[in-house]
Amino acid sequence: MRILAKNLAAAVASAPTEKVEMKGWVHRVRELGGVSFVMLRDRSGVAQVVVEGKADLTLETVISVTGVVAANPKAPGGAELRAEKVEVIAAAAADLPYPVNGDPEKIGLDVILDNRPLSLRNPKIRAIFRIQSTIIEAFSEYLRGQDFTEMKTSKLISGSTEGGTGLFEVEYFDTKVYLAQSPQFYKQTMVASGLERVFEVAPAYRAEKHDTPRHLNEYVSLDVEMGFIDSEKDLIELERGILTHVFAKVAEKNAEDLALWNAAVPTAKQVADAPIVGHDHAIELAAEEAVLQKLGGKKAFEINPEVERLICSWALREKGSDLVFINEFPRRHRPFYTFPLDATRTMSFDAIFRGLEITTGGRRQNEYQALLDVFPKFGLKAEDYADYLMVFKYGCPPHGGFAIGCERLTQKILGLPNVKEASLFPRDRKRVRP
Amino acid sequence: MRILAKNLAAAVASAPTEKVEMKGWVHRVRELGGVSFVMLRDRSGVAQVVVEGKADLTLETVISVTGVVAANPKAPGGAELRAEKVEVIAAAAADLPYPVNGDPEKIGLDVILDNRPLSLRNPKIRAIFRIQSTIIEAFSEYLRGQDFTEMKTSKLISGSTEGGTGLFEVEYFDTKVYLAQSPQFYKQTMVASGLERVFEVAPAYRAEKHDTPRHLNEYVSLDVEMGFIDSEKDLIELERGILTHVFAKVAEKNAEDLALWNAAVPTAKQVADAPIVGHDHAIELAAEEAVLQKLGGKKAFEINPEVERLICSWALREKGSDLVFINEFPRRHRPFYTFPLDATRTMSFDAIFRGLEITTGGRRQNEYQALLDVFPKFGLKAEDYADYLMVFKYGCPPHGGFAIGCERLTQKILGLPNVKEASLFPRDRKRVRP
Repeated sequence: MRILAKNLAAAVASAPTEKVEMKGWVHRVRELGGVSFVMLRDRSGVAQVVVEGKADLTLETVISVTGVVAANPKAPGGAELRAEKVEVIAAAAADLPYPVNGDPEKIGLDVILDNRPLSLRNPKIRAIFRIQSTIIEAFSEYLRGQDFTEMKTSKLISGSTEGGTGLFEVEYFDTKVYLAQSPQFYKQTMVASGLERVFEVAPAYRAEKHDTPRHLNEYVSLDVEMGFIDSEKDLIELERGILTHVFAKVAEKNAEDLALWNAAVPTAKQVADAPIVGHDHAIELAAEEAVLQKLGGKKAFEINPEVERLICSWALREKGSDLVFINEFPRRHRPFYTFPLDATRTMSFDAIFRGLEITTGGRRQNEYQALLDVFPKFGLKAEDYADYLMVFKYGCPPHGGFAIGCERLTQKILGLPNVKEASLFPRDRKRVRP
Repeated sequence: MRILAKNLAAAVASAPTEKVEMKGWVHRVRELGGVSFVMLRDRSGVAQVVVEGKADLTLETVISVTGVVAANPKAPGGAELRAEKVEVIAAAAADLPYPVNGDPEKIGLDVILDNRPLSLRNPKIRAIFRIQSTIIEAFSEYLRGQDFTEMKTSKLISGSTEGGTGLFEVEYFDTKVYLAQSPQFYKQTMVASGLERVFEVAPAYRAEKHDTPRHLNEYVSLDVEMGFIDSEKDLIELERGILTHVFAKVAEKNAEDLALWNAAVPTAKQVADAPIVGHDHAIELAAEEAVLQKLGGKKAFEINPEVERLICSWALREKGSDLVFINEFPRRHRPFYTFPLDATRTMSFDAIFRGLEITTGGRRQNEYQALLDVFPKFGLKAEDYADYLMVFKYGCPPHGGFAIGCERLTQKILGLPNVKEASLFPRDRKRVRP
């Protein structure tokens, strides 16, 4: 009977003389006074195995150990397995390209990503993706509870959502298509289909050339769209609900993973206290914050990464929350389909979390004639958007939505310096493998 | 206070004189004896609204109706809303390109797909995707309950999984990459990372030219991979568990959607009774079945669509289940990474459901040297698989996995003639829009 590392201590309590089997990877080996202490890693954690004499096992070798469980206050979890038989299931070569099980924060990011199949074996790195799994679970669970339907839409599109730039081209039989930047049009189509409330978890693509700690060319987009809203404020409340549930679930299921990174998720109160700040006011507050932090007082003209950091500093000090919603972005900063608030502002918002934009969203234009009127102002032609316009010509309710960048949310929960660390197999301008 | 169509009857019982609001789409209008019966469609269903006089509403217009609820045994659900005020939220043009709310089985598939933004408004078509949402939910839920971690891997890969054909090429900055046919290598990498058990729900791409009722060029793959297995039989048992849970959840959550298609999911007993038949024996049984059905007795040489239909007929008659697992495929029919059973056969399997292959899987080769030995036999070079081989060089346990085609499973649950009907925005050789 195989037992997992996390259940070893319980096995000592319930059946201290029973013979058990453990399987896993040789995480570390230490020899001391005629015995070897083999740290065995499985999907649940790491356990101490005591082997008589020299263990003679290379790191990362997969083994099966049969033995008797025993209490040992010095072992992790207060229990160990005293080996009677050690069997090699799959031997590992002795020439590991780098010390896989050291502290990843002391290893260069390129080494970690170049050796991804091995770096993912590190429990601290693995913790990132266990948390990401919980984020996706909690996001979906919350929305299903609110009567949302999950959808899966095509990632091969014949035109751009936003009008032209930043698209990867795909050779599709005798024609060319593009990788979707977002499921924007499909989300709106599905709201108007009568499903009213939809979400999608899927890859999204941006052919942007910049290589920064906040950009990925392929990322996981947590998309939401909802009918019968009044303004972006309904969406902000929905995102509060989602984030509260995500943070609670991560705290519940991933306490050990968070501890490895010395990280904590915001409390429900912090999410509830996150302020909503108008775009222009946010820029002013950021300028004041810069003065306060003696960073010089040059006022920004838009919400740039520096403003995102400063507004979160302000919010943490003033409101006790480093989550901020910025709304009412100027018309010129938002895509054509954004619903206007007045002549210059829109019913749109960003969510900024711990200094980084994790969400963009807003109410969408749902009136057919208004869309036809706005196209020329954005240099777009109605005939290029025939499928999209069909949605509005035949009755589409007021609606809106947003997307949460899954890797950015993961990054900021754990305090990772680079978003690439929160992508299993990240793609950037130069990296297309593994 | 807005109420949904499905809650109208309950509102009559609990608060028969209260004023309520309903919102939705004008599904159908019938005038009779000085009043109009407006069928109002929202995300929960369709409700009857009674309007004095001529309603003057085009089909698909989005309206808000305020009125008083009332019992009416002749109305759907036994209740109706007697309108006091009807407000147009978004008018629909009167020139619908085809009768959107008729029976989709009487409309050509091309018309349905060309007008996808409108055809998705049909409740019977919408039902397909409500069921698909439940399939994804139940698949994920079951696996999480078995300690699986959800992963999201890159769909942009630098080489082929299977060795060359059927790939879509992507222009990626100054280089070329391909759309992933499956997350095969990533699944195996994640098992070997120590997570042991992983799953992914994501798009997969096949640049195959055939246009048949069973092929899509882009589909949603429900992928599973699991460490420390003995053979494909462990995977078959896992798939039984998944399908049992999926079918039960669809029966529970989508009873009305199933009824619209006059469809039923298999029972738990039928999944448990699904036979496992060896590849060669399956071909013999299919030949006997063909004789029985007077289809002529030419024996097939491989598992083709005809054999898939016949083996399911046999299984339904003999075992009471039209789910069949075929295992022990010949070496030459399976990719290089398949684990051998003996000199000619492999530890692999397919699942055939209601006459269609919905799953391919098997145990994988986990020994480094065995992989190096097998490469030349498949015309592959080890240097092209350096990242992949890293997984096995440094300790990978016995493992295996499979993928369920989400659209095919949906199709067969509902008895849809063409798999494209089970894809929201299907892509085939000629179709890249909407």
